Amino acid sequence: MAKDVTLYWGSGSAPCWRVMIALEEKALQGYNHKLLSFDKMEHKSQEVLNLNPRGQLPTFKHGDNIVNESYGACLYIENQFKSQGNKLIPDSSAEMALMYQRMFEGLNLNDKINAVVYYEYYVPEAERNESVLKKRKDDLASELKLWEGYLEKLGPGSCLAGQHFSLADVTIFPAVANLFRYGLSADRYPKLAQYHALLKDRPSIKASWPPHWLENPQGQGTLKDV
Amino acid sequence: MAKDVTLYWGSGSAPCWRVMIALEEKALQGYNHKLLSFDKMEHKSQEVLNLNPRGQLPTFKHGDNIVNESYGACLYIENQFKSQGNKLIPDSSAEMALMYQRMFEGLNLNDKINAVVYYEYYVPEAERNESVLKKRKDDLASELKLWEGYLEKLGPGSCLAGQHFSLADVTIFPAVANLFRYGLSADRYPKLAQYHALLKDRPSIKASWPPHWLENPQGQGTLKDV
Repeated sequence: MAKDVTLYWGSGSAPCWRVMIALEEKALQGYNHKLLSFDKMEHKSQEVLNLNPRGQLPTFKHGDNIVNESYGACLYIENQFKSQGNKLIPDSSAEMALMYQRMFEGLNLNDKINAVVYYEYYVPEAERNESVLKKRKDDLASELKLWEGYLEKLGPGSCLAGQHFSLADVTIFPAVANLFRYGLSADRYPKLAQYHALLKDRPSIKASWPPHWLENPQGQGTLKDV
Repeated sequence: MAKDVTLYWGSGSAPCWRVMIALEEKALQGYNHKLLSFDKMEHKSQEVLNLNPRGQLPTFKHGDNIVNESYGACLYIENQFKSQGNKLIPDSSAEMALMYQRMFEGLNLNDKINAVVYYEYYVPEAERNESVLKKRKDDLASELKLWEGYLEKLGPGSCLAGQHFSLADVTIFPAVANLFRYGLSADRYPKLAQYHALLKDRPSIKASWPPHWLENPQGQGTLKDV
């Protein structure tokens, strides 16, 4: 079945990484894939645009079916390969509710990380403003405190929706890994650091770890004072 | 079962409306609900904050389970009440793929609508700039052209993921209804207008139509030149 799957991806992109973790969890190793370079604008190539008019990565194809939105692709993969690999949607209604809640709250987390990390990338130098950047860092810190609280309440060794690794972890772990790569303080955010340590060597995550992070394990310190 | 469900909601909020359509489709009429006023900041009341630390609507509870993120709540409701009411996730893998793709692409549509409609609300008068607003309207127009193309390809009388009404429609119809309420031109966007006409009298949608829209059928013309 894996040979019916094709993924176009970029190294370090949280949306791409989500889909790769889902494919690993569902035992779809051996799928076709093509690593593209954002720097070289390969995500805007005709090959991608033919499958994805938005020219974004991931671009994901299974047979003739295309699901390029990363959350959609993860849900589709779990649904199409329900009985294969690890179950990613818990049976218990309480864990399922928490999973959906955290999974979609994760969109806030991503937005707030991106607002800081890509500030210089998206805002022209003339328009940059220390007080705006400071506000964005404060917003991110408030967001991170919510997640510290969620993890604290669940207790040590827990995944985001409880005992079982689920789509909440598939979708949110890449954001957490980005936080620490960008220098987030494990002392100030100990529960997130524990969560990161708990999952970073999980086979699906290790197998899909961004290759350019392996080459350069130290990222920029953009988030060290958050 | 409906009496185990409680929804806190605001009139006209697309995220609230999604959840209400899902509840109607799954034959959960008679659920407990409380209409709150954004203007009076009732979404920041202690009653809401106890269930939803973000102080947002919808706030949704089923038994002891809480799912406040609207996409999460729709997926949870479909999953918990699979065999009740209308099936909202198609069986065919092709329709399912298209459903997940459109459902999550819908987040772009919402963001781009909000960037125009709430421009004056979120940007202080001193910082407002005609060229920024124009750029946002152009971005919205480009987004809308994608959706015109999607609907054109599916042909007349089609829902967003094909023949069957699905979670793609549950999540995106409220945005489309907002577009036309804010004065979008049916001449310039005929496929979206057809789609709006196709679904506006569907029982689940009619039953959950925003009450203040019924009182004041004519909205502002914010989007009339998009």
